[in-house]
Amino acid sequence: MTELDVAALQRRLADFATARDWQRYHTPKNLVAALSVEASELMEIFQWLTPEESARVMEEAETAHRVTDEVADVLAYLLQLCEVLGIDPLAALDAKIDRNERRFPRHMP
Amino acid sequence: MTELDVAALQRRLADFATARDWQRYHTPKNLVAALSVEASELMEIFQWLTPEESARVMEEAETAHRVTDEVADVLAYLLQLCEVLGIDPLAALDAKIDRNERRFPRHMP
Amino acid sequence: MTELDVAALQRRLADFATARDWQRYHTPKNLVAALSVEASELMEIFQWLTPEESARVMEEAETAHRVTDEVADVLAYLLQLCEVLGIDPLAALDAKIDRNERRFPRHMP
Amino acid sequence: MTELDVAALQRRLADFATARDWQRYHTPKNLVAALSVEASELMEIFQWLTPEESARVMEEAETAHRVTDEVADVLAYLLQLCEVLGIDPLAALDAKIDRNERRFPRHMP
Repeated sequence: MTELDVAALQRRLADFATARDWQRYHTPKNLVAALSVEASELMEIFQWLTPEESARVMEEAETAHRVTDEVADVLAYLLQLCEVLGIDPLAALDAKIDRNERRFPRHMP
Repeated sequence: MTELDVAALQRRLADFATARDWQRYHTPKNLVAALSVEASELMEIFQWLTPEESARVMEEAETAHRVTDEVADVLAYLLQLCEVLGIDPLAALDAKIDRNERRFPRHMP
Repeated sequence: MTELDVAALQRRLADFATARDWQRYHTPKNLVAALSVEASELMEIFQWLTPEESARVMEEAETAHRVTDEVADVLAYLLQLCEVLGIDPLAALDAKIDRNERRFPRHMP
Repeated sequence: MTELDVAALQRRLADFATARDWQRYHTPKNLVAALSVEASELMEIFQWLTPEESARVMEEAETAHRVTDEVADVLAYLLQLCEVLGIDPLAALDAKIDRNERRFPRHMP
């Protein structure tokens, strides 16, 4: 699906919200709260698991679907937040990795 | 920057972690915890703001930089989580919007 | 109810967990994750509300019950965390207010 | 310290906020956001620890102090939220344990 890029998803999300008159709820503060709530719903799946169990969550179909669904929710609110704030999320991450490469020198053999 | 796509950023993040021997910390459970912590650091910027003030956070350069930086951190952990779990985040979101379009019918004029 | 103090509630919570063989899940890390998840479930109730609407959540019986229930869940995990770590939560807060009174001088008329 | 009870701490917190003119920021929504942020700051201390390491956080003085400090912050916002909403947190938890005892039957020998 060649059109599946971040900008296309942001357009779908904006159209979805506009069609339902939800954009009035989408202040940056509310979107950040929703993002944080969705990140916690993802964590709820993992909260009682051992590290080893957490590495196997995708082996069971229903859990794999829940995890994938929550990942989608986190990304949805992150992209909507970036849209209303005018932030390019991929450029922001690229710049952050540049900064981290200077901040944390790599192990030398 | 034509190469700035999600897969390229995931490779940069994986190389970064491998070079510092950090991948042993990157269990799905730990990455989800880190994702949630970063989402809360983003919320900390907004917690005492009115809705109106939250809509203007990008007008002040230092705050705009902090917000962009935290957005990058959230995306970094989300992409690393997807990498270790074998989830395609854009496809997950695309499928979720499909489901939501069936679940929440749009307003009719 | 004169016996309703923090120590009595901690005993009830410990007895409850022991009777169900849940204490093996109650590592400090897991209890902190659960505390954070419950705090987010509380926030989910408020995420789309205006400040004014948020001030009226207790006026509607069902919402008031949900808020009270989530407050109880947050306190339950906080008290269980304190129990396993040997922290006295009331003394911790008392000491913190002392420090904050030195750190943030009060407004002078 | 016989006076160290929840109501006394709520009075100290209210006096502290009033003296600094901070109560106008203390909408229920903002207090819930702050509570969630503080719970995540607590989690940040634990996010890369193994379950075994997490059980030993109080052995090192500086980490023990950080954990105790964040516990105090979580409790501070929880008590302030309860104050503005008129919720008795200990009664709420007592009632919740009652409900959970009916909902989760105990293991029988």
